[in-house]
Amino acid sequence: MAILRLPFDKPPHPPKTIPMDPQLAQLKFDANGLIPAIIQDAKSGEVLMMAWMNRDSLDKTIQTGKTHFFSRSRGKLWLKGESSGHVQNVKSIAVDCDQDVLLVRVEQVGAACHEGFYSCFFREFQKDSQQLKVVGKKIFEPEKVYGK
Amino acid sequence: MAILRLPFDKPPHPPKTIPMDPQLAQLKFDANGLIPAIIQDAKSGEVLMMAWMNRDSLDKTIQTGKTHFFSRSRGKLWLKGESSGHVQNVKSIAVDCDQDVLLVRVEQVGAACHEGFYSCFFREFQKDSQQLKVVGKKIFEPEKVYGK
Repeated sequence: MAILRLPFDKPPHPPKTIPMDPQLAQLKFDANGLIPAIIQDAKSGEVLMMAWMNRDSLDKTIQTGKTHFFSRSRGKLWLKGESSGHVQNVKSIAVDCDQDVLLVRVEQVGAACHEGFYSCFFREFQKDSQQLKVVGKKIFEPEKVYGK
Repeated sequence: MAILRLPFDKPPHPPKTIPMDPQLAQLKFDANGLIPAIIQDAKSGEVLMMAWMNRDSLDKTIQTGKTHFFSRSRGKLWLKGESSGHVQNVKSIAVDCDQDVLLVRVEQVGAACHEGFYSCFFREFQKDSQQLKVVGKKIFEPEKVYGK
């Protein structure tokens, strides 16, 4: 197992120095130690969301089989679904040609979006319209799941 | 039409002050004036790539119906397929709940990846393996399209 060596001295979100899987040793994390992860429904192919992972959250995702992300606003690791129970069971993890984006295919429990929609991409641009059109399906009422 | 007002003074990649479609006035571009755009095959649902757009490239994408991105390494706007002819004809543009990621569904001409694969996500992580597994299909030989 290769030991992770970071290309910068003091990243804002320092991951632990953990033994990385050699397959992932070439991943390119950005200056903040983060990589975008696109989350896709493994069965339907619907794109559910995009969030950011650091080394730790990717490692936790692989170890547990449930998606973990790094919250830039809260400055901490989070398990997707930790409040709502709407976890994502990982089916596969793909890496793009430049090794700077991940595509994670999942089985989504409940719904991905905190606004109650199955996918976070529930609004579409329409030509010659004043507002985005809601095209997604609502699965739950947020106030019932998260409280007020 | 609302006039775009940027939340910062001197972005590294300043977009022109163009009249923005009011539907897109709330988009959150990052500190560099960029927003991630996930590109998905409109028919099969396959995720093809992720690239970055600034206001200009998004505007060009909408006006022309072909994806345009902002290259962070080359510091300029580019039409996807300008060298290879492998353009992407836009079918829809969705916005996520936080309005900081775009999902663009396209008809892909040729293949999305400069390495010759239909999707840039042509390699997958495998547990207990030494290397990523190639799972994508190769559509063309790069040296024949781009030259040496």
